[in-house]
Amino acid sequence: MKQLRVIPLGGLGEIGKNMTVFEYGDDAIILDTGIMFPEGDHLGVDYIIPDMGYLFEHQNRLKIHGIFITHGHEDHTGAIHHVLEHFDAPVYGTALTCGLIEVKLKQAKMRSAKINVFRAGDTIKAGPFELESFHVCHSIPDGVGFGIRTPVGLIVHTGDFKFDHTPVDNWPPDFARLAAFAKEGVLALLADSTNADRPGWTPSESVIDEAFDRVFRNAQGRILIATFASLISRVEQAGAACLRYGRKMAILGHSMSENIKMAQELGYIDFPDDLIVSLDKALQMDKNKIAFMVTGSQGEPSAVLSKLATKRHSQLEIEPGDTVVVSAHAIPGNENTVSRIINKLFQRGAKVIYDAVEKVHVSGHASQEEMKLMINLVKPKFFVPVHGELRHLHQHAELAISLGIPESNCVVVENGTILEFTKNKMTVGERYPGGYVFVDGAGVGDIGPAVIRDREILANEGFVTVIAQVNKKGELATDPHVISRGFVFIKEAEEIIDGIKDTVRKTLSKSRNGRRQDVVTDAITKYLYQETKRRPMVFAYIIEI
Amino acid sequence: MKQLRVIPLGGLGEIGKNMTVFEYGDDAIILDTGIMFPEGDHLGVDYIIPDMGYLFEHQNRLKIHGIFITHGHEDHTGAIHHVLEHFDAPVYGTALTCGLIEVKLKQAKMRSAKINVFRAGDTIKAGPFELESFHVCHSIPDGVGFGIRTPVGLIVHTGDFKFDHTPVDNWPPDFARLAAFAKEGVLALLADSTNADRPGWTPSESVIDEAFDRVFRNAQGRILIATFASLISRVEQAGAACLRYGRKMAILGHSMSENIKMAQELGYIDFPDDLIVSLDKALQMDKNKIAFMVTGSQGEPSAVLSKLATKRHSQLEIEPGDTVVVSAHAIPGNENTVSRIINKLFQRGAKVIYDAVEKVHVSGHASQEEMKLMINLVKPKFFVPVHGELRHLHQHAELAISLGIPESNCVVVENGTILEFTKNKMTVGERYPGGYVFVDGAGVGDIGPAVIRDREILANEGFVTVIAQVNKKGELATDPHVISRGFVFIKEAEEIIDGIKDTVRKTLSKSRNGRRQDVVTDAITKYLYQETKRRPMVFAYIIEI
Repeated sequence: MKQLRVIPLGGLGEIGKNMTVFEYGDDAIILDTGIMFPEGDHLGVDYIIPDMGYLFEHQNRLKIHGIFITHGHEDHTGAIHHVLEHFDAPVYGTALTCGLIEVKLKQAKMRSAKINVFRAGDTIKAGPFELESFHVCHSIPDGVGFGIRTPVGLIVHTGDFKFDHTPVDNWPPDFARLAAFAKEGVLALLADSTNADRPGWTPSESVIDEAFDRVFRNAQGRILIATFASLISRVEQAGAACLRYGRKMAILGHSMSENIKMAQELGYIDFPDDLIVSLDKALQMDKNKIAFMVTGSQGEPSAVLSKLATKRHSQLEIEPGDTVVVSAHAIPGNENTVSRIINKLFQRGAKVIYDAVEKVHVSGHASQEEMKLMINLVKPKFFVPVHGELRHLHQHAELAISLGIPESNCVVVENGTILEFTKNKMTVGERYPGGYVFVDGAGVGDIGPAVIRDREILANEGFVTVIAQVNKKGELATDPHVISRGFVFIKEAEEIIDGIKDTVRKTLSKSRNGRRQDVVTDAITKYLYQETKRRPMVFAYIIEI
Repeated sequence: MKQLRVIPLGGLGEIGKNMTVFEYGDDAIILDTGIMFPEGDHLGVDYIIPDMGYLFEHQNRLKIHGIFITHGHEDHTGAIHHVLEHFDAPVYGTALTCGLIEVKLKQAKMRSAKINVFRAGDTIKAGPFELESFHVCHSIPDGVGFGIRTPVGLIVHTGDFKFDHTPVDNWPPDFARLAAFAKEGVLALLADSTNADRPGWTPSESVIDEAFDRVFRNAQGRILIATFASLISRVEQAGAACLRYGRKMAILGHSMSENIKMAQELGYIDFPDDLIVSLDKALQMDKNKIAFMVTGSQGEPSAVLSKLATKRHSQLEIEPGDTVVVSAHAIPGNENTVSRIINKLFQRGAKVIYDAVEKVHVSGHASQEEMKLMINLVKPKFFVPVHGELRHLHQHAELAISLGIPESNCVVVENGTILEFTKNKMTVGERYPGGYVFVDGAGVGDIGPAVIRDREILANEGFVTVIAQVNKKGELATDPHVISRGFVFIKEAEEIIDGIKDTVRKTLSKSRNGRRQDVVTDAITKYLYQETKRRPMVFAYIIEI
């Protein structure tokens, strides 16, 4: 008997965030193709993509009828070129989502993708699946979830969502369609758990208008607003504030410029022609007549905000009297970096407005009361919390249980776990091993745990390499050569260097057998620990001359 | 004319947190001697101490009459042995503070310190200074601030504080004394700014009792409570909950055990004799009759909580049915680590209670309304926000201004900035260069920015060392030897290794002059970037044989 198999993939700590596979027999669809951002201990990793091992293993068997993208954020679109490289399936998204994907594919020099634009509310056939999209609100316009009709029943996937009654684009979520799904009968709901430990209701994006009003009313000098390059609706809100307070707007940051241009072309942003001015023009204007939109709200060192904070921007410099608005919340792991940038901006004399002091950012994800509403609107038989860390999934499952969904009908699973559905049953199947793949420079997947572990030791302790030349009798022929970085400041550590050389000399005089390289390595390691209580990586290389 | 000089030192991003020097002529006192915890990019650093450069420079001139400690937390006491090593001054603190310092000095094998215990409310003479201590509430008992009478006037330093009307030890803050200072006339207030961007009033520690009640009432199995080793009052609260619900308590973690023993001896904790049981006994008891206090609430890998999460504890193992309470808030920079531990505990089947889902922790620092109360109680002429990042100091200064302190009487300064006071004037003087000193293993201050920078490159890119032997003609005599870590997984990178060797061969055949080591290094760097888009540290060492 054929079953529906649902497999959450990717997500670093978060489950089913970046990619989910729906499979019925040999037919499949992929939902989202996002990247993850490396955390502090993923040393040197540029970004992380979902492990497609399962798809590779079943590549010959599976026919992938489509790649469906819920919205245009990186954690849902960013791996699209890695997926298309291996799976030549058509891509489906709303206009803004596809616009952002096309910007991305152009950067990756990938031209042959089959991109299909639909409107929220449209239904798309894909093999044995029928996907009915429904509009949701989130911190980017034109997001959708999907009602996925499968041979075993209707599965509703919310995507990232919040129930915003007064969104920037005046397009509230499609409550009616969710209720209609319930009437049709929903086998399972897969719902966004990100804020499952936040009580209440996430504030509407419209509170930001009020906050911007206060900022624009009080600012005497220039205003700089930092946000995500893809946060199109925030740019719209900033533009509206500029219009209300008679300021022009300049855009700093390549990706933000590109995105705004695209959003204007597609009609998502409707600014008067003269609102946006060039940076050159902006710099000549009266300080109370201009606002700058800048990238780098997560503290990315190469983006504009960080450059401004550390005086590395070639054209713009922070001055006393400037008001800087950080219109974003630090993604977990970035808190420290963002704090430091805020402090540095204060140091340069700016007044900095961030989310702790003014509502210049709100979450794009539902809080507990919205989660309850989603569950009660959709009335699923089975409930699977997704998008969130394990702790959020557990809280979300508890919420569902508190609403009357039987505990046995709620499951918390991890990435790679295969969920099997028949018409009236949900079974937790095997867990497919793997997790995620590191991308570093040109390499996809060649950095594994072993390299990361070595980087960790090097990061904390540094290394010492000693090259010694010995004669046929095994005696030291010349002074050993020491190369070291990250251990001690070698130019001021003559004593240690001499100690290392002494250790090599003494050890060689005692040990002349084949394993002497190891013996010397051990002796140096021990000597260095005794002297410094540190354990750098030690490499001895002995050359017989 | 002699002036009072106040110099905030130490504090990483935070100002005047860990150490402040008060100086009048050649007489001085030191307030607090704390450590800072390394942040993510202080690779391999164990901890950080204030830069005492100013004190060293003026060592011959200055007489230090006393080291006054406000309370027993590490960020106010942890560098005491480093300070006493250079400055043999008497130490003053309340009984609990001195108890914690003595535990610390014992660990540092320092026996000769002159420790003087006072009671909150006592006045101590120290050269031209007279320090009147006043009781404050914080997340550790027996904390004080000081009214410091100096020849130019009275300076009030709050230490870390909150205005808790219902603290665990039933000892509310000394409002009367603060009001008395105001009557006497306060030249300047130096006040804790940590929570300056939090509106309202920080909840009382007593809300934790209610949260513990809910946890203890619902828990079917064992309860594990993780908190800071020095959070004596939390241990007291947990003990009280155990008594209310008929559980015994076992302590896991050496430092917590030591601190509890000391606090019991000094009378700060008053448990019945049979409340605390050994771990062995605890493991044999019914699961609903025992609670464990454990260390590691900040995710420290060597502490108990992390070991439990990753199944590395030798005696205790998390089981389904356990309730784990994380009774602490992640210090900035630790958020990710703590999150992961919580997720792992969920994965092992525990129900985890953390501060987002239940009030099992509250801040120990005043929020905005308390800050206003402090300012209005003390009525200072000048206001100097301290203890906090620049952004907090700026918010705190704005609060003071909103209460009517003239803007010109509020200053935000950074560490090392010398504040000069006369009877009616405050002047911002020079900034003494320096900041803080890294402690790594046995080394104090030998890890500087250069080593940290190298560690950063090694962390992100790894290194490649190539050793080549050439004959007199400069031709390669044998196959070059490659040592590499943290770059690619070298065992699976034969192609790259061969490419490196080829590069060395080709480069040597073209370049036979004295700079060939540099030329080879550059060639390898270039080759590796072309192949991998990565930039490991490259070292070439060429031996002529």
